[in-house]
Amino acid sequence: MNELVNVRLSDSGDSVIILDQRLLPAKIEYLKLQTAEEMVDAIRLLKIRGAPAIGIFAAYAMYVLSKSEKNIHVIGDYLKSARPTAVNLQWAVDRMLNSSDMQTECHTIHQEDIAMCKAIAENGLKLLKNGDCILTHCNAGPLATSRYGTGLGALILGSQRGMNFKAYVDETRPLLQGARITALELMNAGVDVTLICDNMAGTVMNQGRINAVFVGCDRVAANGDVANKIGTSGLAVSAKHYRVPFYVFCPSSTIDLRCKTGADIIIEERDSHEMTDLYFKEPIAPSGVKCFNPAFDVTPHELITGIITEKGVWGD
Amino acid sequence: MNELVNVRLSDSGDSVIILDQRLLPAKIEYLKLQTAEEMVDAIRLLKIRGAPAIGIFAAYAMYVLSKSEKNIHVIGDYLKSARPTAVNLQWAVDRMLNSSDMQTECHTIHQEDIAMCKAIAENGLKLLKNGDCILTHCNAGPLATSRYGTGLGALILGSQRGMNFKAYVDETRPLLQGARITALELMNAGVDVTLICDNMAGTVMNQGRINAVFVGCDRVAANGDVANKIGTSGLAVSAKHYRVPFYVFCPSSTIDLRCKTGADIIIEERDSHEMTDLYFKEPIAPSGVKCFNPAFDVTPHELITGIITEKGVWGD
Repeated sequence: MNELVNVRLSDSGDSVIILDQRLLPAKIEYLKLQTAEEMVDAIRLLKIRGAPAIGIFAAYAMYVLSKSEKNIHVIGDYLKSARPTAVNLQWAVDRMLNSSDMQTECHTIHQEDIAMCKAIAENGLKLLKNGDCILTHCNAGPLATSRYGTGLGALILGSQRGMNFKAYVDETRPLLQGARITALELMNAGVDVTLICDNMAGTVMNQGRINAVFVGCDRVAANGDVANKIGTSGLAVSAKHYRVPFYVFCPSSTIDLRCKTGADIIIEERDSHEMTDLYFKEPIAPSGVKCFNPAFDVTPHELITGIITEKGVWGD
Repeated sequence: MNELVNVRLSDSGDSVIILDQRLLPAKIEYLKLQTAEEMVDAIRLLKIRGAPAIGIFAAYAMYVLSKSEKNIHVIGDYLKSARPTAVNLQWAVDRMLNSSDMQTECHTIHQEDIAMCKAIAENGLKLLKNGDCILTHCNAGPLATSRYGTGLGALILGSQRGMNFKAYVDETRPLLQGARITALELMNAGVDVTLICDNMAGTVMNQGRINAVFVGCDRVAANGDVANKIGTSGLAVSAKHYRVPFYVFCPSSTIDLRCKTGADIIIEERDSHEMTDLYFKEPIAPSGVKCFNPAFDVTPHELITGIITEKGVWGD
């Protein structure tokens, strides 16, 4: 096993080293970032991605820049401006600014995320037995968080302990996070991975290949409805039809009690270019075709077997 | 409206003209084929595709070649060898060989297919009212058959009569027939087309956008189970969950009474290259990843609202 580390402080402490996620899976290339401009660019251009990972990156960036920059508050605002809607980014910068010991604080933020992911993974492992086969969608792994991830944590932690798992990974159109990132993370962890197209998920459930569906999520409403990558709700409908348990994994901070139900969650619609052009040699649809490209969907709580956080199964 | 014609005899009768389907949707390019070698290549290289379309093409090819070739039985065997498993190809060649008037027979074969597709379309139109919105998967349109297609026939015939329809088209991974071909056919017919990724179908049903699902099929078992492009059964599960009617369209010859249930249908598994490489600038999954790529799935009869043929609703 060869752990992919998405973000870390350099040994000398004068730069942040990241894995350039835009190049995956074709290239595994690490970048050494030293200036504020390089760090803001890394966030803006999605060289680093995943809400918790961006928070950890920002903490290390603040520490590195605090050694050379006179006005660290200006630097904090500059980093925050890279992705104004990223809650973890704002949170990590503020926590660093309020700290009297940035060198300790950045490592603490990273270690806390690892500990939380590990606790989620431990709780997930209680749902599995050796040899089980999981179906997953999109990416809820270590490259978006730290070391274990959320939805993939149980498989990775269990593999480290010598257990054998299989996983079917949805490629996850249109941005192919499953094919590009999840498959890589799980193969790297020693899991027996099979890639499928999203429309094959029902077939593998019907054939009895799947013991449970494990996914991450972006937001949980107070009633247990879950917003996650587009396609998640379709998987949940199939899982119910084929009587496969459907589990959602997230930090407890993802549960938003101010949001009453999934109906209150606004779903971002993204550009059609992602569907028709982005990864292709030439456009795969007629010029000017209208596209509908919702980034997320809402899975209603009645289709969810359990929501697993670092504290246990939510609602138990 | 600008009809795309997949196959026709040239005005002079000395060549077969086809639309090169490999280049769609980027290029609309017609090819004029005169020699047996060119015609066999067109079938082999999928310049012409769709079972009925290949049959019609073979009929015209036999007529053209009969004018210059001495031993037309040898030519018939040569054409058949281009795709040994294509039942319509074998059938059309044999029918031409048994005909005393090839010039009439090839046009008859084409006209019969148009009439059958039109009858299927008329029966489909009875299920629709003006303004309805259909969800479809893969390609069951005129480019695979003649003029109307099967699953798309009602939309195309209704549009010709001044009715207004909307359609959501699944892109249909891995070979993207929905994005590449169905979207083009329906836009061309004046239907208001929206392209979606396969994993978005449940969401558009849940949002109440869809009046019915219309799909073609490859084979129907005696009990009404249907084999069609991978992803069809998942759509049917979603349609049941969201209470959307689910209709299958095909010539009555597609119903195979010797095949008792869907369990008797062997599902072809295809190469992983189609999933990871074929249309992409660079591979979208880690090198050496295992893929599962079933070409079809079986939708059980209890999820199907009706199977529509040229004779009406089967089973009524």
